[in-house]
Amino acid sequence: MTLAPPPAARVGDPLTSVGTPSLLIDLDAFNANLTAMSAFAARHGVALRPHAKAHKSSEIARRQIATGAVGVCCQKLAEAYPFAAAGIASIHVSNEFVGADKQAMAVELASHTRLSVCVDAIAQVRALGDAAARAGVTIDVLPEVDAGQHRCGVTSADALFALVDAIAAQDALRFAGIQAYHGGIQHVADWNARKIAAGQAADIAASYVRSLDARGVHCAIVTGGGTGTVEFDAASGVYTELQPGSYLFMDGDYGGLDWSGELRWRHSLFVLSTVMSATRPGMAVCDVGLKGLAVDSGLPRSAIWIDDRSESELSYVSANDEHGMLRAQNKPQEDFAARVGKRLLLPPGHCDPTVNLYDEYVCYRGEHVADIWPIDARGMSR
Amino acid sequence: MTLAPPPAARVGDPLTSVGTPSLLIDLDAFNANLTAMSAFAARHGVALRPHAKAHKSSEIARRQIATGAVGVCCQKLAEAYPFAAAGIASIHVSNEFVGADKQAMAVELASHTRLSVCVDAIAQVRALGDAAARAGVTIDVLPEVDAGQHRCGVTSADALFALVDAIAAQDALRFAGIQAYHGGIQHVADWNARKIAAGQAADIAASYVRSLDARGVHCAIVTGGGTGTVEFDAASGVYTELQPGSYLFMDGDYGGLDWSGELRWRHSLFVLSTVMSATRPGMAVCDVGLKGLAVDSGLPRSAIWIDDRSESELSYVSANDEHGMLRAQNKPQEDFAARVGKRLLLPPGHCDPTVNLYDEYVCYRGEHVADIWPIDARGMSR
Repeated sequence: MTLAPPPAARVGDPLTSVGTPSLLIDLDAFNANLTAMSAFAARHGVALRPHAKAHKSSEIARRQIATGAVGVCCQKLAEAYPFAAAGIASIHVSNEFVGADKQAMAVELASHTRLSVCVDAIAQVRALGDAAARAGVTIDVLPEVDAGQHRCGVTSADALFALVDAIAAQDALRFAGIQAYHGGIQHVADWNARKIAAGQAADIAASYVRSLDARGVHCAIVTGGGTGTVEFDAASGVYTELQPGSYLFMDGDYGGLDWSGELRWRHSLFVLSTVMSATRPGMAVCDVGLKGLAVDSGLPRSAIWIDDRSESELSYVSANDEHGMLRAQNKPQEDFAARVGKRLLLPPGHCDPTVNLYDEYVCYRGEHVADIWPIDARGMSR
Repeated sequence: MTLAPPPAARVGDPLTSVGTPSLLIDLDAFNANLTAMSAFAARHGVALRPHAKAHKSSEIARRQIATGAVGVCCQKLAEAYPFAAAGIASIHVSNEFVGADKQAMAVELASHTRLSVCVDAIAQVRALGDAAARAGVTIDVLPEVDAGQHRCGVTSADALFALVDAIAAQDALRFAGIQAYHGGIQHVADWNARKIAAGQAADIAASYVRSLDARGVHCAIVTGGGTGTVEFDAASGVYTELQPGSYLFMDGDYGGLDWSGELRWRHSLFVLSTVMSATRPGMAVCDVGLKGLAVDSGLPRSAIWIDDRSESELSYVSANDEHGMLRAQNKPQEDFAARVGKRLLLPPGHCDPTVNLYDEYVCYRGEHVADIWPIDARGMSR
């Protein structure tokens, strides 16, 4: 017996018949973002290595490569597998990892793709080097420097030198450059304040590059930057490679930033939800809650009726596991029973963890489903 | 080419070698919770219909049925599919739904299991009745009454009567009782305050039952209650059936409640994480963040070293996508580099949406992996 839920959508379906909750991509907005970032990187002469943790989909990675990206970033080794399996030829794991199981994954990946990884401790360099040598693979290594986030990464030039020396001592490892990413400053709302913060992070990265130069070590790659700071990172003269991810989608958090510079992004990612109850005045309930929307960066800041794309008078005000509470702040006495069955587009507050809740993107153009893309790295956090 | 991440664990593996992040079940604690709730329901003469939205696993549902549960609840129709496929003979979808696709799912499920569903609008009764009649299946229907949560459910006896009449007019539907659940009061911390709140919800449910009685309609089932209130619901004389879910696992939120009554629960659910970086004094970074821990009800409130089960001096203080920041509040100058590679057990703040991030439970007893259970309803929110 194969008893399984029917598909949420098929190519050609009208958008109004897509099962809910579903994760939707507005292809026109998505493609505008895709090509705008590629053109931006080309214009500034920096390599583009988009972060696949945002979309977790080899279909999307292929489109990024096709429009000029040099490869992708992943945040975890497990996450890199579907991209390696799909033939993405260059993958950077922009994060530290530890343990024999993880070294074995890195070695396996390195036999299928050009793999680079981050380190910030000598023990990991040695363990990885030994594992790679035994397997006969070569792995590029980029020590991470703490660019101001105070999370991972070395905090002194001496610590960086020690890593570079440890890498040099391993035949199977190759020093390729440094990772310098500051996640926190991506979300500074004010454009000028963000510019200043990005400049400070770039200055830290530059000082590490100079220290290496002074020691006769050439730093071919300085990789980092995210959607919030790429504009400044590209102009810094420090970064050779940019790692933005969320630019494809936007979300409530990034959408709320001040975008005064040359870059503009469109919201392309939405959760489609159905109003499924409305028994009290001034409110209604929709069918997406904590299991279909990440709420760490806030609730959906708007709600758009799918049938005419008008802004709804109902706001998403709280999330239970599978319920979204909607309130009409300005119409507390109105009866919304007639809205039951209507579908809403909800832009997630935070795209990355919302994407990680779904198995596929339902891509639409105009009023119809145009494509279905698997989220093949969904849940791959090891 | 089949390139995929290796399994996180195999039965018999030492716990210290399990890949991270993984979702762990302490089987001794789990079984204690499983049998305690079964014994409690039997002692009080109420039916136990645990909520499968908490665990999303047909392996666990089978164990609940084997220890006396009359069936399970699901919160969505899609979620019910793996349970129906696994042979669970009675499934209650404790939620409203709307649309032809959802009615088709209900009809398909009803041909494989005894299905009951909730309604709070006449239009849904008619649409479901028509779909069921066309398919030749019978569906039990339990109108939801608003027991004080002000979410879904009718708000007057007249509205309930109208639903009962609409159900009676459908040959393929059968009025089976009422759903009366108040999610908010499950989490009232103080035991006496929770008891009072549960009593108020039960009073509302009782008044609907009396109204139906006075109209000559027998209400065979009054279903509701959760982990926080079952003790009061069972004693109320109103509820015939209880729907707890989180009791199997506990979580940071439920664990923080005052449990002054006859029920005690053990934490059985943990996220296993590895410390993967520690480059600054007083802090470290572990490998689980927003994609492996739901944070809507707070961060992990404790951290336990897996090797000796001692409480860690490091507290989980913030989550990025794939990083967990750990701080030693009382040791701001200590260097934790020697802890890199060590594994921590982290109890999630909210079990339901955390479970929904994983594809399997790694079940352990003592120091070894004892079983692997698929989370076969993971992500099924339609």
